[in-house]
Amino acid sequence: MCRWIAYTGEPIYLDRLVTKPDHSLVVQSLNSKMNFTNSGQLLSTNGDGFGIGWYDSRYEPGVFKDDLPAWHNNNLQSLCHQVKAHTFMAHVRATTTGDIQRTNCHPFAYQNWLFQHNGHVSHFSKIRRELQLCIAPELFSELRGSTDSETFFLLALTYGLMEKPKQALQKMVARILESLLKVDKDGVLNLSCAISDGKNLYTLRFSHGEAPMTQFYSTHSACLEDLEAENCQMPTNSTVVVSEPLDTFGDKWTEIANNTFTSIHDSQVEIETFWDG
Amino acid sequence: MCRWIAYTGEPIYLDRLVTKPDHSLVVQSLNSKMNFTNSGQLLSTNGDGFGIGWYDSRYEPGVFKDDLPAWHNNNLQSLCHQVKAHTFMAHVRATTTGDIQRTNCHPFAYQNWLFQHNGHVSHFSKIRRELQLCIAPELFSELRGSTDSETFFLLALTYGLMEKPKQALQKMVARILESLLKVDKDGVLNLSCAISDGKNLYTLRFSHGEAPMTQFYSTHSACLEDLEAENCQMPTNSTVVVSEPLDTFGDKWTEIANNTFTSIHDSQVEIETFWDG
Amino acid sequence: MCRWIAYTGEPIYLDRLVTKPDHSLVVQSLNSKMNFTNSGQLLSTNGDGFGIGWYDSRYEPGVFKDDLPAWHNNNLQSLCHQVKAHTFMAHVRATTTGDIQRTNCHPFAYQNWLFQHNGHVSHFSKIRRELQLCIAPELFSELRGSTDSETFFLLALTYGLMEKPKQALQKMVARILESLLKVDKDGVLNLSCAISDGKNLYTLRFSHGEAPMTQFYSTHSACLEDLEAENCQMPTNSTVVVSEPLDTFGDKWTEIANNTFTSIHDSQVEIETFWDG
Amino acid sequence: MCRWIAYTGEPIYLDRLVTKPDHSLVVQSLNSKMNFTNSGQLLSTNGDGFGIGWYDSRYEPGVFKDDLPAWHNNNLQSLCHQVKAHTFMAHVRATTTGDIQRTNCHPFAYQNWLFQHNGHVSHFSKIRRELQLCIAPELFSELRGSTDSETFFLLALTYGLMEKPKQALQKMVARILESLLKVDKDGVLNLSCAISDGKNLYTLRFSHGEAPMTQFYSTHSACLEDLEAENCQMPTNSTVVVSEPLDTFGDKWTEIANNTFTSIHDSQVEIETFWDG
Repeated sequence: MCRWIAYTGEPIYLDRLVTKPDHSLVVQSLNSKMNFTNSGQLLSTNGDGFGIGWYDSRYEPGVFKDDLPAWHNNNLQSLCHQVKAHTFMAHVRATTTGDIQRTNCHPFAYQNWLFQHNGHVSHFSKIRRELQLCIAPELFSELRGSTDSETFFLLALTYGLMEKPKQALQKMVARILESLLKVDKDGVLNLSCAISDGKNLYTLRFSHGEAPMTQFYSTHSACLEDLEAENCQMPTNSTVVVSEPLDTFGDKWTEIANNTFTSIHDSQVEIETFWDG
Repeated sequence: MCRWIAYTGEPIYLDRLVTKPDHSLVVQSLNSKMNFTNSGQLLSTNGDGFGIGWYDSRYEPGVFKDDLPAWHNNNLQSLCHQVKAHTFMAHVRATTTGDIQRTNCHPFAYQNWLFQHNGHVSHFSKIRRELQLCIAPELFSELRGSTDSETFFLLALTYGLMEKPKQALQKMVARILESLLKVDKDGVLNLSCAISDGKNLYTLRFSHGEAPMTQFYSTHSACLEDLEAENCQMPTNSTVVVSEPLDTFGDKWTEIANNTFTSIHDSQVEIETFWDG
Repeated sequence: MCRWIAYTGEPIYLDRLVTKPDHSLVVQSLNSKMNFTNSGQLLSTNGDGFGIGWYDSRYEPGVFKDDLPAWHNNNLQSLCHQVKAHTFMAHVRATTTGDIQRTNCHPFAYQNWLFQHNGHVSHFSKIRRELQLCIAPELFSELRGSTDSETFFLLALTYGLMEKPKQALQKMVARILESLLKVDKDGVLNLSCAISDGKNLYTLRFSHGEAPMTQFYSTHSACLEDLEAENCQMPTNSTVVVSEPLDTFGDKWTEIANNTFTSIHDSQVEIETFWDG
Repeated sequence: MCRWIAYTGEPIYLDRLVTKPDHSLVVQSLNSKMNFTNSGQLLSTNGDGFGIGWYDSRYEPGVFKDDLPAWHNNNLQSLCHQVKAHTFMAHVRATTTGDIQRTNCHPFAYQNWLFQHNGHVSHFSKIRRELQLCIAPELFSELRGSTDSETFFLLALTYGLMEKPKQALQKMVARILESLLKVDKDGVLNLSCAISDGKNLYTLRFSHGEAPMTQFYSTHSACLEDLEAENCQMPTNSTVVVSEPLDTFGDKWTEIANNTFTSIHDSQVEIETFWDG
C-alpha cells in the first residue's frame, strides 16, 4: 500500500511533481487521502522508504532510494530541485510486512527499465518460492530484497517485458494467479504499476478479488493549477500518472479504468483493456 | 510534538509498555490519538526517530536511538523483548523543523540522568543563541544536535537539575520565557517532560500561552487490562506516566494537571504545583 | 571477509569482548590484522555493517544489527555496556559485493538459533538459485537478504541443524560443493562459522581450494591480560572463540585446525574432524 | 582527517572524478595513501559519511550527503553517473570524535556557497563555545551539527566570505588561533579547504603548529591518463584540486604550498600567499 507518480514529456525539474505541489508525493508520504484498505481503513502514512528513478541524458535511469520517510528528507529535496528529466517516476512505501531497506524500495531498475508498484498479493510468503523459481536463471541474481514487487518485475522481465510489455505483464499476472489460487481460491491480487524503458511510459491497473487501487492521469497543462503561480502550468505534451491526484480531484484528471494497460509515448495516451481472461 | 512513556517500579521487560500493548508507544508512533496542535489538527504520525533509555544494573542508563520510525524496527522489538529495567523511558519523535538525526532523538543523557520532552517553544531559532549562551561553559560541548529539547536539558543541568530538580526546572522555564517574551509577547512555551537519575522519576507539565500537552499516570496494576491476559497485570508498586494512555482512557489513569511537577520514588507519587509565578 | 567473536560461560557484559579490549571486535572493524585474501592482501576495514546476538533470560536470542560501521556507533557502545549474556556472538562485515543492509548483517537468527560466518564461496551469483531451491519450502520465506551466509544457514536448517548440527553442516557443505564444482572445478569454499542454540556453541572451520580463514579459541582466564587491570580476568569456565585473537597472538590462544567442528558446552571444548570426504 | 576533490571547468559527469578513477575519491574512502597524522600514522579509512555539492543550472548548489561509507553506496554511484556540473566538490569523512550524522558531513551549504574541509584544530571542545559566540546572530540558527568545520564556515560567513573571501578566511583563522592559543600555546590548526560560490573555486592550505595537509591541483587534460582510455582526457580549461592525486603523483599535478590562498575562475589559477602574520 504505497503512493506513486510518473511523468513523461518535456524535461522538467522533478520538484514540480515530487516536492512542490500542495498534495505532492512527499505530502502524500505523510498524509495520503485515497489509500484505503479493502475494509475501508485509510492508510495515510507511507513512511517506509521512498525512491525516484529518472531519465536524463544517459541510457540507464538514475535511481535514488532511501529507507527513511520522504518527508523532511534534505537529499530528496535537493535532488528534485536540481535534476531535470523527460521521464521519471517516484514512489513512497508503506508496508505491513517486510524489511525496511533500500533494496525493498521502488522503483526497481534493470538495464534501461524501471518498475514501480502499488498494491499487494495475499499469501505472498506462501507463493514466493514458486514464483521465484519461474524467474529466468540468468535474472535470479538480480533478487536483492524481499518484496513481492521485485519478484513481479523479474517475472515480467522473464516473460519478455523488454520486447512485448503488455503480453509479458499478462503472463506475469496469469502466473501469479495460478500460484495464488492454488493456495486460496479467494486470494487477492491488486496491481497498480508504472513501467518505463526511458522512451515509453506504461501503466497497469488490474485487480482480482477486491476493489482496484486508484490510478489517474492528466495531459492537461493546468492539472496543477491550484498551486502557486510559478508552477501553475505543466508543459504541453506532457502526461502525469498518479495513484492519487496532486491537487483536489477535479475534471482535469481522468480515472483509469480497472483492467487497463496504458502506453504513453510522445504525449499520446493509448488505453487498452489489459486482460480478456 | 511527540509521544512518550516512562516507568519506574519492579523490573519489567521494556516490551510490556513499549511494543506489546494495543496502544503501545510503537503503535502511537504510527497512529497517536491525542496529539493535537493548537489549531485542533491531529498529528497522528511520530515517525522522525525514536529512543529508549533504561536503568538496569549500571550506574549510567543504557540509551538506544535511531533516526528511523519506531514501527517495523526489528532492533527496537528485539531489545525491548530482551531488556529488563526498573526505570525506563521511551520516546517517538515528530518534528516540523529540524534534522532527522540520532542526536536530535530523545531521551538525552548526561552521566546518570535522562531527559525527554514533548512540546515546543515558538521562535526557537531566534532565541536559541541566547539560551545556549546560558549553558554552563563546561556543559557546552555536550551540545550534539539542534533541538530545543537538548538546549532545555543542558539549561536545567546548568541550573542545578542534579541537586534540586524542581528549582532547576523553574529557572529553566523562567529563562526560556525571558528570551521568548522579548521576541514575541504572545509566544508559546509548552513542556511535558520526563526526567530521571535512575532512582527517581520526575515529570513536568507546564504550558504558557496555549493548552498544555496531555500527561497521565497510573499506579493501577490493571492499567493495561484490556490487553491480552499474559500482560494484563503491571507489578504492584509500579508507576507509569504517559503522554497518552496505553489503553482506552479509563478510570485507572489520572490526568496530571497543568503546571505540575511530579516526583515518583518507591511507588510514591508526590504532586506539587510547579510554578507560582 | 569479516571478523567475529563468540563467547559462552559465566554471564558477562558484552563490552568485555566487543568494545573494550585493545584489539576488540570494534577495533578490528577499522583495523584488523589477519584478514588476508588468497593473494595475500590484507583487508583491514570491516565497515559494511555489524551485528550482535545474545542469550540472556529469554529463550530466543536478542539481535541488534546496523548497516553502519561498528566504530563510533553509540548504540553498540551503550548496549554492550548494559547487556549481560552467558552466550553471545558479534560480527563486523566486509563485503566486496552485495548490498549494505541490516538483513545482510550477521548473526542470522531462527527461533533460538544464531549463525554467523566469515568466508566466501566463489561464483555465488551462479549457484545461488540452485542452492536456494534446496531450502525447505517452509523456510524459504525466511530469506530476507541476499548473502551467501543466509542461504548457508537456511540450508543447514533444512538439513537438520537443530537436531544434529555436525551432520547438517556436512550436508550443507556437500551441497554447496556439488553446485560449485559443476560451475568451476577450481572453485573455492571457505567457511568459518559460529552457531548456537543458546546452550551450546558450535564452530566450523573448513576450506576447499584455498588457505582456510583463521580461527582461535581460549579457555584461559588470562587471555585478555594485556589489557587494563579491571578487565584482565575472564571468568573461569568460559570459552572465547575468535577469527583473530583480541590481544597479541600468544600461548593462551589455541589455533583451531582446518576441517574442524567444535562443540562447546559447560566449558568443555570438544574438537572433531569435520569431514572425512 | 578526510579526503576531498573539487572541480571547475566544462560541465562533466561527476563520476569522472568521484567514482571512476583508479584512485577516485570513493577508492580513497576505503584506502587513502597520503592521510598521515602528525605522528606518522596512515589513516587509510574515511568511512564516517560523505557528501557532494554541485552547480548545474540552479543558483543554489545541489547537495547530497549520507552518514554511510562512500564505498558500495548505490545512490552515490547512480547520482555521479547521471549528474553533470561545471563546478563541484566531494568529500569523504574520517573522524576520531563527533557524531556520525549527515549534518556533520561536508560540503556545508549556505545560499549559493559551498565549503568543505580536511584538517583539524586541537581542543575544539574547549574553544567551541567562544568561537560559536562570534558567529553572527542571524547565522547562528544555521548550526545543525557539531563539527569544527561547520563552525569555521559560519565564522567565515560572519567575517564577509561572500564579499571578500580571502580577508574573511584570514579573520576566521586569526579568530580561531586567538581562542586556541589561549587554551594551549602549542595548539595545532590545520586547514585544507575548498570553497565555491558557483562561479569561483577557492582553496586554502594553512597550518599552524604541524605539517600541513597535502593539497594538489592540475589543469592538465591528461591528469587522469593512467586510467582507461574513455576517461583519459579532462576537458581543456578545467581545473581539479585534490587532497591527494587521483593517479600516481606525477608531474601533471602541482603541489600547492603551505599558507596559500588559491582562486580559480575561467581556468585561471591565481595563487597568493594567504597570511603575512
